[in-house]
Amino acid sequence: MVSVLVGRGQSVATAESLTGGLIGAALTSVPGSSAAYRGGVVAYATDLKHTLAGVPSGVLAAFGPVSEQTAVALATGVRDTAGADWAVSATGVAGPDPQDGHEPGEVWLGVAGPSGGWARRYRFDGGRDEVRAAAVAAALSLLAGALDLEAGSREQR
Amino acid sequence: MVSVLVGRGQSVATAESLTGGLIGAALTSVPGSSAAYRGGVVAYATDLKHTLAGVPSGVLAAFGPVSEQTAVALATGVRDTAGADWAVSATGVAGPDPQDGHEPGEVWLGVAGPSGGWARRYRFDGGRDEVRAAAVAAALSLLAGALDLEAGSREQR
Repeated sequence: MVSVLVGRGQSVATAESLTGGLIGAALTSVPGSSAAYRGGVVAYATDLKHTLAGVPSGVLAAFGPVSEQTAVALATGVRDTAGADWAVSATGVAGPDPQDGHEPGEVWLGVAGPSGGWARRYRFDGGRDEVRAAAVAAALSLLAGALDLEAGSREQR
Repeated sequence: MVSVLVGRGQSVATAESLTGGLIGAALTSVPGSSAAYRGGVVAYATDLKHTLAGVPSGVLAAFGPVSEQTAVALATGVRDTAGADWAVSATGVAGPDPQDGHEPGEVWLGVAGPSGGWARRYRFDGGRDEVRAAAVAAALSLLAGALDLEAGSREQR
């Protein structure tokens, strides 16, 4: 992931909730990651999703922290704040208890890039650790897919 | 750690560099951590230590990112931004290469609390993974020590 970004001269930022920093930790596990990873926010408390990660309070009030809209706003917000080409976000319920009417394992992952932001809903099985680990893997895979897509659309031009 | 904070009705935030999010991830590994952990920033790129984590640019220019002053400013900055009672910070060199004249394994960890902020220098052995893991363990231990100290000074009053 990091090598793909470095090869393209692009950077990435993270906005994490249920993963608590694990996506940033994964991206920085390899030497030389500072050439692509800029940093990000861990917006664990709901109010920090607004004050720290730039999610509009109207979005949080209307859709809640575990939603497509919040995942997209987290990604686009941190992409701006961190001055990165790409951003990935994760918000959901790690468990073991439900939260705001959402079951454990429900996770929204977001991506923001040069051509906008979007999010996708996931339903992960297992306990807290498994849900968080699955969210990290899926977030990296979502980002990789977005990078591929953009590379493809570049080639077609 | 989280249970101690919850028992005292206090909260914590994180400002991480070389650990990339691992301290936040450790604090949120247990269910119910949202009662104490607010969130924080991963300020991996040096400029984000200023723009995202509130380290004065004069501090970064004068002392560099791997310094006592930057570690303290990271902790006090994120404590403010995240509205937490406590904050812990980590900045240093994970390796394998030296950075800004600092050897791999040199790490500054900071704590900020109700009575101010301070930092301590560490020298960890091992590879990148070991240095990062040691920094996380030491950061949690530094925070635990600070909590003990404050509890002691409360009892003496």
